[in-house]
Amino acid sequence: MVERFEIVEKAILKMLEDKKYAALRDVLVVMNPSDIAVLFSGMEEKQIPLLFRLLPKELAAESFVEMESEAQELLIRSFSDNELKEIVDELYVDDAADLVEEMPANVVKRILKQADPEMRRSINQILRYPEYSAGSIMTTEYVSLRPNMTVEEAILRIRRQGVDKETIYTCYVTASDRKLLGLVTVKDLLLTENDETPIRDIMLTNLIYANTQTDQEDVAKMLTKYNFLALPVVDGEGRMVGIVTFDDAMDVIEEETTEDMELMGGIIPSEKTYLRSTAWDLFKSRIPWLMLLMLSATFTGLIITSFEDALAAQVALTAFIPMLMGTGGNSGSQSSVTVIRALSLDELRFGDIGRVIWKELRTALLCGIALAVACFAKIWLVDRMLMGNEQITWMIDLVVCLALCVTVIIAKVVGSVLPLVAKVLGADPAVMASPFITTIVDAVSLLVYFLFARSLLL
Amino acid sequence: MVERFEIVEKAILKMLEDKKYAALRDVLVVMNPSDIAVLFSGMEEKQIPLLFRLLPKELAAESFVEMESEAQELLIRSFSDNELKEIVDELYVDDAADLVEEMPANVVKRILKQADPEMRRSINQILRYPEYSAGSIMTTEYVSLRPNMTVEEAILRIRRQGVDKETIYTCYVTASDRKLLGLVTVKDLLLTENDETPIRDIMLTNLIYANTQTDQEDVAKMLTKYNFLALPVVDGEGRMVGIVTFDDAMDVIEEETTEDMELMGGIIPSEKTYLRSTAWDLFKSRIPWLMLLMLSATFTGLIITSFEDALAAQVALTAFIPMLMGTGGNSGSQSSVTVIRALSLDELRFGDIGRVIWKELRTALLCGIALAVACFAKIWLVDRMLMGNEQITWMIDLVVCLALCVTVIIAKVVGSVLPLVAKVLGADPAVMASPFITTIVDAVSLLVYFLFARSLLL
Repeated sequence: MVERFEIVEKAILKMLEDKKYAALRDVLVVMNPSDIAVLFSGMEEKQIPLLFRLLPKELAAESFVEMESEAQELLIRSFSDNELKEIVDELYVDDAADLVEEMPANVVKRILKQADPEMRRSINQILRYPEYSAGSIMTTEYVSLRPNMTVEEAILRIRRQGVDKETIYTCYVTASDRKLLGLVTVKDLLLTENDETPIRDIMLTNLIYANTQTDQEDVAKMLTKYNFLALPVVDGEGRMVGIVTFDDAMDVIEEETTEDMELMGGIIPSEKTYLRSTAWDLFKSRIPWLMLLMLSATFTGLIITSFEDALAAQVALTAFIPMLMGTGGNSGSQSSVTVIRALSLDELRFGDIGRVIWKELRTALLCGIALAVACFAKIWLVDRMLMGNEQITWMIDLVVCLALCVTVIIAKVVGSVLPLVAKVLGADPAVMASPFITTIVDAVSLLVYFLFARSLLL
Repeated sequence: MVERFEIVEKAILKMLEDKKYAALRDVLVVMNPSDIAVLFSGMEEKQIPLLFRLLPKELAAESFVEMESEAQELLIRSFSDNELKEIVDELYVDDAADLVEEMPANVVKRILKQADPEMRRSINQILRYPEYSAGSIMTTEYVSLRPNMTVEEAILRIRRQGVDKETIYTCYVTASDRKLLGLVTVKDLLLTENDETPIRDIMLTNLIYANTQTDQEDVAKMLTKYNFLALPVVDGEGRMVGIVTFDDAMDVIEEETTEDMELMGGIIPSEKTYLRSTAWDLFKSRIPWLMLLMLSATFTGLIITSFEDALAAQVALTAFIPMLMGTGGNSGSQSSVTVIRALSLDELRFGDIGRVIWKELRTALLCGIALAVACFAKIWLVDRMLMGNEQITWMIDLVVCLALCVTVIIAKVVGSVLPLVAKVLGADPAVMASPFITTIVDAVSLLVYFLFARSLLL
C-alpha cells in the first residue's frame, strides 16, 4: 500500500510542477480525503493553497478536516472570507470545535465570524466542556425522533435532515424536554415490516450513555466494548446533548495508547508527532525523568560505597553487578508491562492484588531458579574455565546465583504491585513502568548481593 | 462505571444462589451482551450453563460470541444437539469461524454437524485463509447489489436480506461474475430523492479494498485511517468474497497494541489474558528474553574484568557504574519507544533515518549536557562534601560526567536506529525496545567509562 501511495505522490508533485491542473484535478477527485491530507503534509508551503483550490468544495472540506493543524492554519490564512465560509459551512460541528481549539486567537476570530449563528452556538457549547471529557469530543448534530412517530415518519425525517448529520444510522428518541428515552437504528427501521409501527414499540430503552463530564478514555472504551457506532451524551438532567461517534473513539484510543507507551518509556507525553517535534520539544519531554532517575541513582552509589569492604576483599564481585541489575530490571519491567496493559484493558482490578502477587511469586520462582541454574553453569564454564579467572570460587558463584534468584523474585513482585497501587491512588499505572521499577530494583539487587556476599564470603 | 457493574454482578450472584430465576431473567434481558459475557467470566463453572439457559435465544447467542473461549467450550459441552444448533444458527459466519478455530477437535466436529450446509461451506472457506490475514477475519455475509437496480429496489433488497447481515449500512455493487464494481451506503440510498435512480449513478467507484491475503494489521489501519464501517475483501481476480467490519478492526488494533507492549517489555506475546495465564504460561513467555539477556551480560562482566586495573587504582569509580548504565538505558529506551510508536502509526518510514539520527543527535546533546552538569554538581555536593567521600577527586567527577554525556548520545542514536533497521529487515520494530537496547547500552557505557578513566586517571 505505502509504496503505491508514494508513486501517486510523486506523480502529483510532477503534475503540479508542470502546471497540468486539469489532469491533476482528475486524479484528486478519485482520491480519499485522508490520502489527500497526507499528500498535503509532505508538500511545500506555497504549493498547499494552489493544490487545495483544485479540489471540489465537498472533497476540499473533507480533506481539510483530516489535515495537520499547521497546514490548516496556512490554508485559512490564504483564504478569502468567502472561501473560509464555504469550508466552515461544510464542517461537522465537532470538527469545527476541534479546529477552533487548535488555531491561534486571530484565526479563531475569523472562523467564528464566518460560521452561521447556530454553528457558532454549538461550537461555543462544546468548548465549554473540560478538555478530554465526552462533552469536548462530541458532536451536537444527530438525528432525533419522537416516540409517537411511525416508522414511515421516522424514515422521512432521516431523509430530510440526514444530509447534515455525521451519522444517521443510530437515531435517538427524545421527549419534548429533550430527555433521552431510547434509540432506534436505521437497520431496525428498515427491517420493521409495518410502516405504521410507532417508534415507541421498536425503540431500545436499555440505554448505555455517557455524561458530558465522562472521561474521553472511558467513552472510547464503552464504544469498543459494546461495538457501538455512536454513544449518546447526556447532561446532568438526563437531557440529550450530543453523540460521540466510533471514529472519534478510535482516535482517542490511539492517543491514549501512545501516551501509555510514552509514559512506559519514561517520556512526558506530548501531542506532536515525532517528525513535527523539534529537538528542543523532545528534550523537554525526556529530560525530567532522566534527571530524576539519574539523581535517584545516588542510592545505588551509596550502597556500593558502604559495601566497599566486601568489594575490596573479592574484586571479582564487581564484574557481576551489571548482569544482576540488568536481569532484575528486565524481570520487573516484564511484570509491570503485563499488569499495566491488563489494567488498561480492564482485565484487572485492584481487588485482584492477592491473585496477582501469588501468580507473580510462582512465576518469579520458576524464572529465578531457571536463571540461577543457567547462571551458575555459565559462570563456572565461561568465566572460570574458559576465561581462566581464578578469582572466581564456588562460593562467589553461589553468592551471585542466590542474589540473582532473590532479585528476580523481588523485582517481579514490585513490578506487578506498583501499577496496581498507582491505579488505586488515581495515578496513571503506566508511570510505574520500566524506568521507575528499574531504579528501585537496581538498589534492591545491590543490597541483596552485598548482604549475601558479606554473610557468605567475609 | 466499574463500581456500578460490580454491584449488579453481586446482585445477580445472590439471585442465582437464592434460585430467584424469574427476577434474574428480568435483569438479564435488559443487559448488554458484552456485560453478560463479563458476568460469565467471573462465575463458577457449574453456574454458567444454569444462567445461560435463562437468556432469551437471540441475547444468548449475542452474549455467547462475547465470552472467553473457556466459557464457550464449557457451554458447548453442556448443550444438547438442539441447543447447540439454535446458537450456531444465530451466529454470524465470522464469529462461527472464530469459534471453530479456538475449540478442540471433538467440539468442532459437533459444531460443524449442527451448522446448516451453507454456513459450513462459509466457515471452511474462511478457515482456509492464513492466520492473521484479511480472509481469516472477514465475514462472508454482506448485502450485494447490482448496478442496474433502482434505489427503491435496492432498499427493498436490504429490507429482505438485511436481517442476517452483520452490517447493512455499506452495500457492495457487484457484476454477475462477482467482480466488485462499487459501493453504496444506506445514507446515500436514503438521501437520494428520486427512487428510480439506478445504483450505477450513485455508487462510489473509487474503491479502497483489501485482498484476502492482506495482513490483518494493515486492514485495521485502513479502516481507522479512512473511518470506514467496513472494508471489502476481494480475491486474486478482484471478485468480492467478504467484508471486515470496524469492530473486528478495533479488536485487531487492541491485540496488536498488546503484542507491541509485550515485545517492548521483553515478553513473548501470548493470546491469553493475564488472569487466565498460569504461572507456567507466564514463565514460558518471560524466560526466553531473560535468559538471553542474562547470558549476553557476560560481555559487561568481561569489560569490567579487563579494566580491573583502573577499578583497583580508583575504587570510587565502581560506585557510579549503576548510575551510568541506568541513565544510558533510560535514554536509549526513550528513543526506541518514540520511534517504535511512530513506525506503528506510519508516521515514519525507513527513508527518514537521516532526519531521525539528526534529531536524536541534537536531543541527545541537550540531554547529555544537562545531565552531565547536574551530575557533576551532585557528585561534588552530595558524594564528596555531604557524604565526605575523600576518594572522589575533580578528575573522577569529570570522568563520570564525560562518560555520562557520551553514553547518552550513543544510547539515543542506537535506540532510534535499531527499530528502523528492524523494520527494513521485516522484523517487528518493537523487539528493539528497552531490554535489548539496555543490554547494548550497558556494554557501551562501561567501555566509554573505562576508556575515559584509563586515559585521564592512570
